[in-house]
Amino acid sequence: MARLCGLVEMKLGSLKTGQRDGSLVVVNDKLTRMKAVPEIAPNLQTALENWINLKPKLEQVYQSLNQNQCDAITFSAEKMMAPLPRAYQWLDGSAYLSHVERVRKARGAALPPSLLEDPLMYQGASDDMLGPQDPIRCADEDWGIDFEAEVGIITDDVPQGTTTPEAQSHIKLLLLINDVSLRNLIPGELAKGFGFIQGKPASAFSAVAVTPDELGSAWADNKIHLPLQVFWNEQPFGQANAGIDMQFDFARLISHAAQTRRLSAGTIIGSGTVSNYEPTAGCSCIVEQRVREIIDTGNVITEFMRFGDHVRIEMLDQHQQTVFGAIDQVVQKWP
Amino acid sequence: MARLCGLVEMKLGSLKTGQRDGSLVVVNDKLTRMKAVPEIAPNLQTALENWINLKPKLEQVYQSLNQNQCDAITFSAEKMMAPLPRAYQWLDGSAYLSHVERVRKARGAALPPSLLEDPLMYQGASDDMLGPQDPIRCADEDWGIDFEAEVGIITDDVPQGTTTPEAQSHIKLLLLINDVSLRNLIPGELAKGFGFIQGKPASAFSAVAVTPDELGSAWADNKIHLPLQVFWNEQPFGQANAGIDMQFDFARLISHAAQTRRLSAGTIIGSGTVSNYEPTAGCSCIVEQRVREIIDTGNVITEFMRFGDHVRIEMLDQHQQTVFGAIDQVVQKWP
Repeated sequence: MARLCGLVEMKLGSLKTGQRDGSLVVVNDKLTRMKAVPEIAPNLQTALENWINLKPKLEQVYQSLNQNQCDAITFSAEKMMAPLPRAYQWLDGSAYLSHVERVRKARGAALPPSLLEDPLMYQGASDDMLGPQDPIRCADEDWGIDFEAEVGIITDDVPQGTTTPEAQSHIKLLLLINDVSLRNLIPGELAKGFGFIQGKPASAFSAVAVTPDELGSAWADNKIHLPLQVFWNEQPFGQANAGIDMQFDFARLISHAAQTRRLSAGTIIGSGTVSNYEPTAGCSCIVEQRVREIIDTGNVITEFMRFGDHVRIEMLDQHQQTVFGAIDQVVQKWP
Repeated sequence: MARLCGLVEMKLGSLKTGQRDGSLVVVNDKLTRMKAVPEIAPNLQTALENWINLKPKLEQVYQSLNQNQCDAITFSAEKMMAPLPRAYQWLDGSAYLSHVERVRKARGAALPPSLLEDPLMYQGASDDMLGPQDPIRCADEDWGIDFEAEVGIITDDVPQGTTTPEAQSHIKLLLLINDVSLRNLIPGELAKGFGFIQGKPASAFSAVAVTPDELGSAWADNKIHLPLQVFWNEQPFGQANAGIDMQFDFARLISHAAQTRRLSAGTIIGSGTVSNYEPTAGCSCIVEQRVREIIDTGNVITEFMRFGDHVRIEMLDQHQQTVFGAIDQVVQKWP
C-alpha cells in the first residue's frame, strides 16, 4: 500500500556503531534527523537482500521522520560510515569520455578502439569503504594523491546476461563516491596489464544513499542530471553535470558487468570521474586539471594533494538542498 | 588450552542451506563427516572476523569429529558451497612466472619489465563464488572457456602497510580455486587497460578450506609444496607442484595488496595458475597447453572447453589423502 500512496522515496545510511557494517538508519529528507531500524534490518546489506519486502517498511519510517512523527537522533555526517561499509562488489566505470580522453592523454596512453560502444570498467576493492568524513590515510605524498568525484548506484541481485533495458529495474539506490587515486603508482601498475591494486586505495562514499525517486525529474535516462560540486581546500574546483557527456548510463554499465556472470545484491557501480567537455564545468579530479594546464600552457601548474588537504564533494538538488550530504575528507599521513 | 595440546589443524566448509552464506561446518580429516556449529559461528565469514576467540572452539569440534565423539552428518562435496560463498575481496596473483610467460606469449603481449620483483595481481569479482560441484554456466562456447587451477589463502584483518615478514601471521586458511577464464574475451578487455570484468566469470572453490598446519611439512615458506592434480574429462592434464617455481609466496602477495590499503578479514588471495617450468608437470589451464603446442608444432591442437566438459582439480597429501576435496565442475549452456 505504501507504494500505491506514492511513498517511493527514501534516504538510507549506516551509523557508526563499532560493528563492521554499522546500523541501518533511515535519514529524513533534510538530512537533520535519523532513526535506526533494527526491527526492519540490522544493516543496509540485509535490506538490499530483502528489498521488495523491506522497502515499504523503510518508506513508512521515512515518512514518519519527515513529518516529525517518530523518535529520532540528530543526523551528523561524522557519525556515518559508508552506506555499505564493506560490499561484495565495487565496479567502477569510466562513463565520461572527456575524463577518459584527458587522463589517458596525461599518461601517454592511446584511447581504446571501441570507446564509444564498449564501456571501460574496473573491478575495485570493496572490503573497506570509507565514510563521508573518514580521512584519506596515505604513507607517502609522492604517490600523487588525487580525488575522483563520481556518482554511483547500488543494485539488487542481477541475473547473468541481463540486458540494458532489463537492467534499469535493478538500480535501487544512488550515492556519491570519492574514488581516491594514487596517480604516481598507476602508470607502472597499469603497464602490467591487470588493472589497479595499489593505485586505488579505499574509496569514500556519501553519508546517505537515496532511492532514484528522491531526485524527481533529475533522475532520467538512468543518469543523474545535477551538477556535482567539488571543492579542494574550500576553493571551487568542479561543477560538472553528471547528466551531461555520460556516454554509458547506469543500465548499460550493469549489463556490461553482468554479461558473463550474475551480480549479487549490494553491488556498487560507479560512473567514473564526472566530467564535461564544457571547460567552465571545471574538473572532478586533479589529473584532469593538470592535463588542461599542459594543453593550455605546456606546463603542469597544479600539484597533487598534500597531507592536511581537504576535498569536499556534494550534489544539490533543484532547490539547492543537499541530496546525499557532502563527502568531506582530509588527507592524513599514515602511520 | 586446545592450542597447547597441539590441536592447531582444522578443515572448514560452508553447507548449502538456501541462505547466501550457507552454514559453517567443521569437516573431519578424511572428509567423510561434518558438523554444523551455529553455536560457534553462523558462517565462515563470522568465524574469520573473530578468529582468535573462535578457533579453539572449532578445533575442539574437529578433534571430536576425528575421534567419532560427536554427532555428525555425512560429508558430500555436492552439499557444499564455496568456503566463502561471497567474500568482500578476491585478489588473484600470477605468482608462477612460467604461466605468465606462456600465456602472455599466447596473446602476443610482452613480459612486464620488473617481473621478478613486482607481483602481478588482479582484483577479482567476489560477490558470487561457486561451490566445488557447481556448474560453470556460460552463454557461448566461442568465448573460449578455460579452467585455471590454483591454490589460495584466506586472511584475517591485514593492516595497511603490512610488510612481507609480518604478513605470514595473517594467513588463516588455505584452499583450491578454479579461476574460470573466458579466453576469447580477455584480449579485447585487457587492451582497454583496466583489467578483467567479462573475461573472468565466477570462480569455483574447494569444498573445504584448511588451516596451514593441516599440511604439515608441505606448508613451508608460505607455499604449498604438493602437486596440484588437474583432470579434463577424466584425462590427466596437469600435476604441477604448487611449491615449485612460485616466484612470490603468499606473504609477499599479501604485502603487495596491503601496501596502500588495509585488507578486511575474509580476503581471499589466489596464487594464479599453478605452473612449473618442468614440461612433464603438464598444465593447469588449457591456454598453456595451446602455447606449448604452438612452440612444438606451430599449430594449436587443443580447443577450449565445450558444453558438457568436466574439469577436476584436487590435491593429495603425502599419504595420498585428499586435502581439500576435489573441485569437479561441468560446463553448462546458460540460460
